[in-house]
Amino acid sequence: MKFWDEKEVQSAYHMKDAIHDIEALFEDIDQVIQTQRLVIPTGEGAQSMLYMPSIHKRKALGIIKITSITPNNPEHHRPTTQANIILTDISTGQHLASLDGSYLTRLRTGALSGIASKFMSRTDSKTLGMIGTGGMAYEQLLGNLEVRPIEKVYLFNRTEAKAIQFKNRILKDFPDLEVEVVQQVKTLVQHSDIINCQTQSTTPVFQAEDVKPGTHINGIGSYRPEMKELDYHLFPKAQHIVFDDIEGVTEEAGEFIEAHEKRIFQFNEVSGDLKSVVLNKDILRESNHDITVFKCVGAAYFDLAVAIGAYQKLKSQS
Amino acid sequence: MKFWDEKEVQSAYHMKDAIHDIEALFEDIDQVIQTQRLVIPTGEGAQSMLYMPSIHKRKALGIIKITSITPNNPEHHRPTTQANIILTDISTGQHLASLDGSYLTRLRTGALSGIASKFMSRTDSKTLGMIGTGGMAYEQLLGNLEVRPIEKVYLFNRTEAKAIQFKNRILKDFPDLEVEVVQQVKTLVQHSDIINCQTQSTTPVFQAEDVKPGTHINGIGSYRPEMKELDYHLFPKAQHIVFDDIEGVTEEAGEFIEAHEKRIFQFNEVSGDLKSVVLNKDILRESNHDITVFKCVGAAYFDLAVAIGAYQKLKSQS
Repeated sequence: MKFWDEKEVQSAYHMKDAIHDIEALFEDIDQVIQTQRLVIPTGEGAQSMLYMPSIHKRKALGIIKITSITPNNPEHHRPTTQANIILTDISTGQHLASLDGSYLTRLRTGALSGIASKFMSRTDSKTLGMIGTGGMAYEQLLGNLEVRPIEKVYLFNRTEAKAIQFKNRILKDFPDLEVEVVQQVKTLVQHSDIINCQTQSTTPVFQAEDVKPGTHINGIGSYRPEMKELDYHLFPKAQHIVFDDIEGVTEEAGEFIEAHEKRIFQFNEVSGDLKSVVLNKDILRESNHDITVFKCVGAAYFDLAVAIGAYQKLKSQS
Repeated sequence: MKFWDEKEVQSAYHMKDAIHDIEALFEDIDQVIQTQRLVIPTGEGAQSMLYMPSIHKRKALGIIKITSITPNNPEHHRPTTQANIILTDISTGQHLASLDGSYLTRLRTGALSGIASKFMSRTDSKTLGMIGTGGMAYEQLLGNLEVRPIEKVYLFNRTEAKAIQFKNRILKDFPDLEVEVVQQVKTLVQHSDIINCQTQSTTPVFQAEDVKPGTHINGIGSYRPEMKELDYHLFPKAQHIVFDDIEGVTEEAGEFIEAHEKRIFQFNEVSGDLKSVVLNKDILRESNHDITVFKCVGAAYFDLAVAIGAYQKLKSQS
């Protein structure tokens, strides 16, 4: 059995790989088995253990992602979610590898936003507004940079100091980018071709009325019914809304559940899931004035795609 | 994260530890959370992946045992079941260790038989008859040796060559034991104070009428409804029958399910589960003539006990 920690996975497997492998898995979706995930509450609030198994039949590889959620961890300078992935050869039964799953989770989530931006945002999108600069933000940036000619990034965070830290990190890795931390979220919304939200907010982080025509929005923060980072007044204004996984969003994304209950948006109005968009090579934008929305909550088969991809790259290098 | 393979776990954690830790966990059973296990079929017959999570609340440690079952593996000189255990600190969310789970599964199953023999067999049991000398057998021997003054071991296996191999392994590790491979299972049954069965047989491996008064029987083989290694005519002759886990045996042990359906034995006739026996310090034997039966199918909390115990020993040594 091989063991690869976060740094090793990070140095071998990148955003380009993740986007490629997730798009490739969509072609193979009939080969995927995934069950309901198991959740064990382990403490107050959302503190819990999550177990997400999935299997790729033709590749004869199975994974389980084991995720701990510890909501008060940031107070102790530890990440809220920590994941480990075990990969098994199902033809021999041999457990092949343990891979750090935290980076792979952030990477696949960034890749999903990247794929959505590729199929939904304006091809000339040059400005990216990021609301929330916490643990998931960096790979969200990478996903968008991979697919669009971003020149300027606007950052907004409830705690401004964290936005400034994140700005410095971006400038270190991408010195050619222009990065601006804004005090008012409205400034960001009005200047961004793509708005990417990654918060755990229970109330909208921007106003729908401020969104300019032609904007694409990725919402990856709300993954529980009480979380509602997107303003649902946006949904009737959007020409296309795509979900990463329709069942997942229907059950987990708070702002969509509330919009559905209030009849502001109906789940059957969705343009499709990311898989159908990729498989049909749908460009979900009729004009440069369309507003488009992608909502992501995650699903086990995205983890399967990147875990197999990372394993194969790491194995070939070792 | 620490990684310990089978040899490392084996050299640090032994039968005496496993018996101690399982008995200790019975005292703490209100601290244990376990959910239903997840099973994903991955091929023909029983080929599958099994996921068994459990949590010890006060110790703030959780495990998941990931087991592959590959029925045709023995043809390729690989084990049928291969297990890996991931241990997580649920207070910090940190994944602490990956432990080989195959040895720990065999060890805890041997420990369960050892505990059963300690509470149910005659204290002067000197002869042990082992039916089935496959992958689980060695730790079954260890469990019985730990609790009773065994002097002679009888071995029976469908393929005699494997019984001879197993005899040689025993003599190498325990040169003071007398070991005899028998051609007729009846010889073994008539000479054994304790009979320990570890087969995947779908038909009884010995006849109830051959069992002498005073015998204790451990059945660990049948863990699926089609498996029936024990002769159910034994059950009405037994003064005490104990299950490792009542729910598990009721759902999984073929000979008991059939006996119950045929009204030869009713599940409510069971004397209790192993936990109640240990907690009440019940000696389930009124005389040297009683026949007693222990049936074991396994449960996640037994894995939790040995995984935490092994982790603590390995950590203190590293």
